[in-house]
Amino acid sequence: MEPTPTAAEGRTVRVCLSPSLLPHLKIDQAVVVVIDVLRFTTSVAVALDHGVAAIRPTETIEEAGSFAAQGYLTAAERNGQTVAGFNFGNSPYSYMSPELAGARLAVTTTNGTQALHAARAAYQIVTGAFANQAALTRWLVAQGRPVVLLCSGWKHNPNLEDTLFAGAMVLALEAEGYRAKDDASTIARALYQAASQSKRFYITHSSHYQRLIELGLQRDVKYCLRADTHPVVPLLHEGALVDALRLPNPTGA
Amino acid sequence: MEPTPTAAEGRTVRVCLSPSLLPHLKIDQAVVVVIDVLRFTTSVAVALDHGVAAIRPTETIEEAGSFAAQGYLTAAERNGQTVAGFNFGNSPYSYMSPELAGARLAVTTTNGTQALHAARAAYQIVTGAFANQAALTRWLVAQGRPVVLLCSGWKHNPNLEDTLFAGAMVLALEAEGYRAKDDASTIARALYQAASQSKRFYITHSSHYQRLIELGLQRDVKYCLRADTHPVVPLLHEGALVDALRLPNPTGA
Repeated sequence: MEPTPTAAEGRTVRVCLSPSLLPHLKIDQAVVVVIDVLRFTTSVAVALDHGVAAIRPTETIEEAGSFAAQGYLTAAERNGQTVAGFNFGNSPYSYMSPELAGARLAVTTTNGTQALHAARAAYQIVTGAFANQAALTRWLVAQGRPVVLLCSGWKHNPNLEDTLFAGAMVLALEAEGYRAKDDASTIARALYQAASQSKRFYITHSSHYQRLIELGLQRDVKYCLRADTHPVVPLLHEGALVDALRLPNPTGA
Repeated sequence: MEPTPTAAEGRTVRVCLSPSLLPHLKIDQAVVVVIDVLRFTTSVAVALDHGVAAIRPTETIEEAGSFAAQGYLTAAERNGQTVAGFNFGNSPYSYMSPELAGARLAVTTTNGTQALHAARAAYQIVTGAFANQAALTRWLVAQGRPVVLLCSGWKHNPNLEDTLFAGAMVLALEAEGYRAKDDASTIARALYQAASQSKRFYITHSSHYQRLIELGLQRDVKYCLRADTHPVVPLLHEGALVDALRLPNPTGA
């Protein structure tokens, strides 16, 4: 087992506004929180909270599809839409059925699953969204490791909703004694503070919001902005996201 | 001559928070504004306003030094400090002497000159800082082209001071009828609005500010935050930054 960082090194937080910037950060001792609020990391929280046993992220559509032969349900989204031939796309409402209890799911999305791949050198990888903010914060504090908040963005460009959630997490972690260690944390915090009176108003400025509204997905957007609806901690464990709170050793270490 | 974009295409603004993200933006029809507030693009405005004829940015220290043989003054900065053997570092106060009138300068810096290089595919490249904000805004409006505000950041990571100035420019251009076209514009605008009551307070959160203060450069930082002290438009023209307002054809086209 690797040595635990000292308290001073451990309780720090950094923000990475795009997976393209991650190579410039040292993450091998950090917990990386992958953020794709609209909609992947919200849907992951919903699915695990409804009893899905494991969610295997894949980079390609072909790879996600190939898991069907092993009894997985499959989900594929590109540019906001469900790919033909797959059980699911990326809507949180897809994952609310009691019938999903115990199921295994293979998923690929435009941005979120790519960000998970980009973070593969991290000490641990979890996913975050408003849906699991409080549970995630408590779990991170229990780990005591440096935290890197990785915004998936939209095709490598920073986006509003992920930066907003990163800002919310910076504030939540600072309230637990963490120190923000980079300028991107200050930028994200300022955005969240500016928006906190009116998250939905701010999100309407997001280019991805416009894209989802044009696809008729207002209901999904509204759901993704609700806080603390699903107290789970999706942890990448043996290649799949599982709820860290249900593992025999809940730190996942 | 290439066709002028239509008014609708032309009056748009995007923000790029790090040179590492620039490959994801289309810039061949855009004016890219390179921003390195602390201190390169401030010093460029100061130098041109004091009569420096041309500033040749170079990527390497060796290349900057090699221009001495051609009668150039040379400047090199790495990690905030002047490189030994060079006439200047990166302080705006270095460039306030009347003796500089007509001089040619070769410069390399940690971040700003690298950002200029990253933007080489742009239709035109200018530099911006608080020091030349109003003159730059007027010139951009006269061009009528799409604008990309490129923050130099610190070693590929977004930084506070450049994002802050990008936000100020988004607001200035929106007041002239431009439309912000990406989420990074909204993020930068929110930061500037949060900070505008107290730019210096905000900048004290910047990691680069701390670095400069440790080097005893408080006076430089204060100077770099003053607005509209040098009404010039540094334009990359035949490999060197010159004041577009002094060119025979002031559009620089």
